[in-house]
Formats: sequence, structure tokens, C-alpha cells
Amino acid sequence: MRKAVDDVVKDTFGRKVRELRLSLSMSQADLADRTETRQALISEIERGEANPTLDSILRIATALGVEVVELFDSRH
Amino acid sequence: MRKAVDDVVKDTFGRKVRELRLSLSMSQADLADRTETRQALISEIERGEANPTLDSILRIATALGVEVVELFDSRH
Repeated sequence: MRKAVDDVVKDTFGRKVRELRLSLSMSQADLADRTETRQALISEIERGEANPTLDSILRIATALGVEVVELFDSRH
Repeated sequence: MRKAVDDVVKDTFGRKVRELRLSLSMSQADLADRTETRQALISEIERGEANPTLDSILRIATALGVEVVELFDSRH
């Protein structure tokens, strides 16, 4: 059960990252550059398959111009 | 500037974890047991000094009975 809930959270997070990135006309490579990370990690995150650190999550939020809380909010 | 914002997010996260843990009468050792992590990490998280992975954050939210989004919401 916990696994399923966790997967939903990761899926929401990945979907939010992808939506915001595309709304800024940013490629995965662009976002990787801006967050000092690998494009493969961005791809994994957007598929809900990554286990990023809080520092990575903070860098992503900053690059996308949102607060961390917004990336986990499934209501929008 | 980004550093300062990130610190506020980590402080909020740590404060929320501590408040919820205490409201459940859980020790740091209890929370460490329930999240399959080290007590030192719980201590660092509550001081805003840790860089936990998303999987750790998910386990903590589950152990505290809240959604991840609540741990990053500075409004409450």
C-alpha cells in the first residue's frame, strides 16, 4: 500500500516538473544544465522513477520558478 | 539568494517533522525505526541540515501520517 502511495507522489512530482519545464519551453537538457544535474536524472524524475535528494528537488524548483510545495501538490 | 531560500525550505521541513513527531509522542529513535533510517539523520533533518532523498521523505511522511506536501507547506 505504501509503495502505491509513494508511486503516486513520485508520479505527481514528475508530471509537475514536466509540465512546468514545457511551459517554460525548456528542454530536459536545459533543465539539467540549470540544476547542475544529468539529463538522465531529469528524464527519470519526469517518469516518476528517480529518487532525487532534497537539494536536487530545491534546485529544480528554483529553475522552474516555483516553490517545492507546488511540485508535490496533486490538487492542481 | 538561492541558498537562503533553500535554507528556509529545509528549516520548514525540519520544523514540521519535529512538530508532528512530538505530537505523536514519538522519539527521534522511534521515527528512525519506523523509517528504516538512522537517528542521526532524523536529528539533522529536524535542524534543517540534512539532504534526505525523496524516498526518505516519503517514508517520514508515511510514519507521521501526513502527505509530503504538508511537510513543505510553510503556511501552517
